[in-house]
Amino acid sequence: MQKSYVLWFTGLSGAGKTTLAKKLQLLLGQSGVNSYILDGDVLRKSLNRDLAFSAADRKENIRRAGEVAHILVEAGVVVLAAFISPYREDRQMVRHLFSPGEFIEIYVKCPLSICESRDPKGLYRQARDGKIREFTGISSVYEPPENPELIVETFGQSIDDSVRQIVQYLRIRNLLPPGEK
Amino acid sequence: MQKSYVLWFTGLSGAGKTTLAKKLQLLLGQSGVNSYILDGDVLRKSLNRDLAFSAADRKENIRRAGEVAHILVEAGVVVLAAFISPYREDRQMVRHLFSPGEFIEIYVKCPLSICESRDPKGLYRQARDGKIREFTGISSVYEPPENPELIVETFGQSIDDSVRQIVQYLRIRNLLPPGEK
Repeated sequence: MQKSYVLWFTGLSGAGKTTLAKKLQLLLGQSGVNSYILDGDVLRKSLNRDLAFSAADRKENIRRAGEVAHILVEAGVVVLAAFISPYREDRQMVRHLFSPGEFIEIYVKCPLSICESRDPKGLYRQARDGKIREFTGISSVYEPPENPELIVETFGQSIDDSVRQIVQYLRIRNLLPPGEK
Repeated sequence: MQKSYVLWFTGLSGAGKTTLAKKLQLLLGQSGVNSYILDGDVLRKSLNRDLAFSAADRKENIRRAGEVAHILVEAGVVVLAAFISPYREDRQMVRHLFSPGEFIEIYVKCPLSICESRDPKGLYRQARDGKIREFTGISSVYEPPENPELIVETFGQSIDDSVRQIVQYLRIRNLLPPGEK
């Protein structure tokens, strides 16, 4: 079975978590790696559709996401998890579900002003207008990782360069099939 | 990627759901099929550890199990789901998450008296002593499937014969890799 692990993308809405995950999934597929995108937005419409955005519900959202990621890793799947996951403590909780080396935290770093100018889903505008409460970065805190495995800055380099940075990280740690470029 | 689907084992505690799943997983592995056992008891200690055994919690237990099974199937994994899942309506809810043919309901049929005499976890005794409330078959209802894809009677035949019956079902429907015996 292939080596399985989770790449946990954390960062503000609009930082590029899902975009990175999708591009990376294509590359991994070309290398014969079976990966699965566990996306916060998608999960909130299925497994976590009973949850809202209070601190307690955000915690439960991440707890369940972590458990599902763990199940997928046990099943031999490489997980690309894209969750704002704003609280340090919650991300630590998820990390502790995994064996050392299996949980790779990637901080998708992008200034709030740039995320807000991108506003791909129109959510920042709604948050500024007060139509969305408890929106991370506006009316709810984001706690940046202190010691992530990787920091990817999506404002100073292209998406392709960001993906290359992740692939480079995986290659060095023998997390890609041998012989792949 | 391999063809993925879920075998949903439903039946009383002690009927043999997990035992069947484990034996089947070994056989599938020998055929190169990557499968994962999603076990009710295990899930209640991880993803579903916030849930108890009321009707509402049982429903939520199965809803989440169904969503996770769906994610695994999307990720290309064959899922062996072992859940008492006593309510017909809840199993139907899970079935509707899947495309036709992806959800295979297996009724692991065994009379209560035999399950109770096996009592592998000592739970029936505790239920009879009133130490466990809402125990399926004793103080909580089990609704047998009306139209399961397969009925496996674990009281009149050996475990190996039961497993063979399931393999036979899978083979006929081309759910095993070609060329396997």
